[in-house]
Amino acid sequence: MSEVDQLIADMGARARAAAGTLAAMPSAAKARALVAAADALREAGDAIVAANARDMAAARAGGLSAAMLDRLRLDPARVAAMADAVAAIARLDDPVGSIVSQGTRPNGLHLARVRVPLGVIGIVYESRPNVTADAGALCAMAGNAAILRGGSEARESNAAIHAALVAGLTAGGMPADAVQLVPTTDRAAVGAMLRGEGLLDLVIPRGGKGLVARVQAEARVPVLAHLDGVNHVYVHASADPAMAEAIVLDAKMRRTGICGAMETLLIDRDYPAPATLVAALAKAGCEMRGDPEAFGDIVVPATDADWDTEYLDAICSVAIVDGVDSALSHIARHGSGHTDAIVAADADVAEAFLAHCDSAIVLWNASTQFADGGEFGLGAEIGISTGRLHARGPVALEGLTTYKWVGRGHGQVRG
Amino acid sequence: MSEVDQLIADMGARARAAAGTLAAMPSAAKARALVAAADALREAGDAIVAANARDMAAARAGGLSAAMLDRLRLDPARVAAMADAVAAIARLDDPVGSIVSQGTRPNGLHLARVRVPLGVIGIVYESRPNVTADAGALCAMAGNAAILRGGSEARESNAAIHAALVAGLTAGGMPADAVQLVPTTDRAAVGAMLRGEGLLDLVIPRGGKGLVARVQAEARVPVLAHLDGVNHVYVHASADPAMAEAIVLDAKMRRTGICGAMETLLIDRDYPAPATLVAALAKAGCEMRGDPEAFGDIVVPATDADWDTEYLDAICSVAIVDGVDSALSHIARHGSGHTDAIVAADADVAEAFLAHCDSAIVLWNASTQFADGGEFGLGAEIGISTGRLHARGPVALEGLTTYKWVGRGHGQVRG
Repeated sequence: MSEVDQLIADMGARARAAAGTLAAMPSAAKARALVAAADALREAGDAIVAANARDMAAARAGGLSAAMLDRLRLDPARVAAMADAVAAIARLDDPVGSIVSQGTRPNGLHLARVRVPLGVIGIVYESRPNVTADAGALCAMAGNAAILRGGSEARESNAAIHAALVAGLTAGGMPADAVQLVPTTDRAAVGAMLRGEGLLDLVIPRGGKGLVARVQAEARVPVLAHLDGVNHVYVHASADPAMAEAIVLDAKMRRTGICGAMETLLIDRDYPAPATLVAALAKAGCEMRGDPEAFGDIVVPATDADWDTEYLDAICSVAIVDGVDSALSHIARHGSGHTDAIVAADADVAEAFLAHCDSAIVLWNASTQFADGGEFGLGAEIGISTGRLHARGPVALEGLTTYKWVGRGHGQVRG
Repeated sequence: MSEVDQLIADMGARARAAAGTLAAMPSAAKARALVAAADALREAGDAIVAANARDMAAARAGGLSAAMLDRLRLDPARVAAMADAVAAIARLDDPVGSIVSQGTRPNGLHLARVRVPLGVIGIVYESRPNVTADAGALCAMAGNAAILRGGSEARESNAAIHAALVAGLTAGGMPADAVQLVPTTDRAAVGAMLRGEGLLDLVIPRGGKGLVARVQAEARVPVLAHLDGVNHVYVHASADPAMAEAIVLDAKMRRTGICGAMETLLIDRDYPAPATLVAALAKAGCEMRGDPEAFGDIVVPATDADWDTEYLDAICSVAIVDGVDSALSHIARHGSGHTDAIVAADADVAEAFLAHCDSAIVLWNASTQFADGGEFGLGAEIGISTGRLHARGPVALEGLTTYKWVGRGHGQVRG
């Protein structure tokens, strides 16, 4: 066994032991530990910002892009927000121990499905150092031990955040191994995490497409993955034009770089005001790709690839479709199963869309940018799952648990 | 692309199209199709038994073991039971469309989590031909398309069952591709199913350990797997001896070859009647492996491997433990997370066991042989999941579904 494999195996064994303790911790005790961790993060604010400054200097020297530098950067306000997020997680309802379903069988055996933690969760992420606090706190609040592997460019920031987090958690009564940070940036450590038989119960990649695809390809453990958000807004003929314009502008332009952003606008052939709609997008600074014969020079010609592209930028593709079935088949062919919306006044058409669109999130008369754990009332999110198994859409504490069957009898045998 | 890869890709595309139709079918329509399929199976009874006779002849010539021959064998009674099972699945509550949770956000956006089918499910199984009808019907009733790959020794039986099933399902209004049977016994077909990107949403191996392990190792799609059932019964000091004896005998000896059978008996050091308990097992024909110093010659010496062994036979390991914590740590070290039970009159001890034993099914004063979808009131089961993600323990219709988030607004934007 290589040194890195041994390191990960040892961390896994310690995580497994910590998971047993965490699973048995009452909700109030977990919440107290998280509040202590939030306080510790606030107190360590200067040290965290100083560590981050060293990462930033190295990143600048290494020629990181402005976007990546912004993701990496911490300042006192961002550290405070990180601490607040941990404190907010402490206030969430703890799913552990809640009863999913229960009943008594004719033979008198009482059976309940009870929520329990998943166990040991691995998080593999990139440059955002706040994930260290955020993911660690979410895993721990749901009673799981976490093994965190952050990006090498955030190494010093992550170490400082992790030190404060663990100091707080242990002061609050959690085991020191509840949240562990992989101390090496050796790429082999990720491989060891992903392969480890019985090491992790779940791995969650958080980052760009490349990272997620690599984790999915390598993992021998279950993956909770967020892939593309090629999201559509379908503006039906019955849509109120003012509502359609407001939703489309918000869905595309409120923030262009988030996974809930609209990437393709589908306009029904019978929608009365398509020109006004695309003009509003253009005026807001959005490049559009589609068929100039349909829309004029306001759009540039789309290539086949455009319909499958997650731009994450002030660009969208736009197409005319013939009715809801045509919209649904476009989405089935090109969508990524993340978030799709219809704008329509016709309730029957809208309900047909909601029923037949097979995405994790389907919306009627609302912006796709609501695809967010906070907006969904989950209080936080560890990610938005585009897989179909286990949890789908925004995933928070409940998605970090499973259930077990608990049977209480008085001597029942099958016989 | 090889011929087999192309075959599986084509079947996958047809399954995907059928899944769209199935997802939209009302419960009553799905139930009608299953009832028609049950009728068709009954009508095809002679043809199915004749096909099975050809498989049996080939299997005898090939030297299959008596146990495998029994699994393969169909007679009119077994065909009738298979048809009855399909009809029983038609009577189950359809989870599709049921609301997991719902609420209205402060901004007026109504959000519901609604159960939807998983999509396309692959089933890879061995010699039992009834799985063809059973798994096909369960998948279809939950709105999923199924791709079935049975064992080569049951080829003729599976083809006959599949033909009848599909004739009934289509007569009842389901698409012909709702349940497809891989027509080749080429081993490469399984590889193509397991690798296929976007082909299957889930694969369920049903069969022995070797098959399950191979599917888990090869699969690039999520697996709902049943691994070992190294199940324990812990007899606490407070256990009523008559109840303990009845439960232990049932858990081990009612049927020794099922996954819910007890494989290890843990007797508390303070239990008053250990000799009576092991004598009862011995009298029932059970070989015991343990420490002869503790139990005398009624047990043979256990090796280290015994504690991790799923005998599936009239054999069990037996150990003395010092209290519930010692029992729990034995189970944590050697158990497989399937089903573990405590026999105790002391409710505090029992509740501690139920809370801290981290298995899919934990039981108090009941036989481990209740680990069964029918006994749990699920009406059927596609398997017993020993994984932690998605569904755990007996899995029936609900475990073959996922959910999507459905949001209904009136123009909400994030802003």
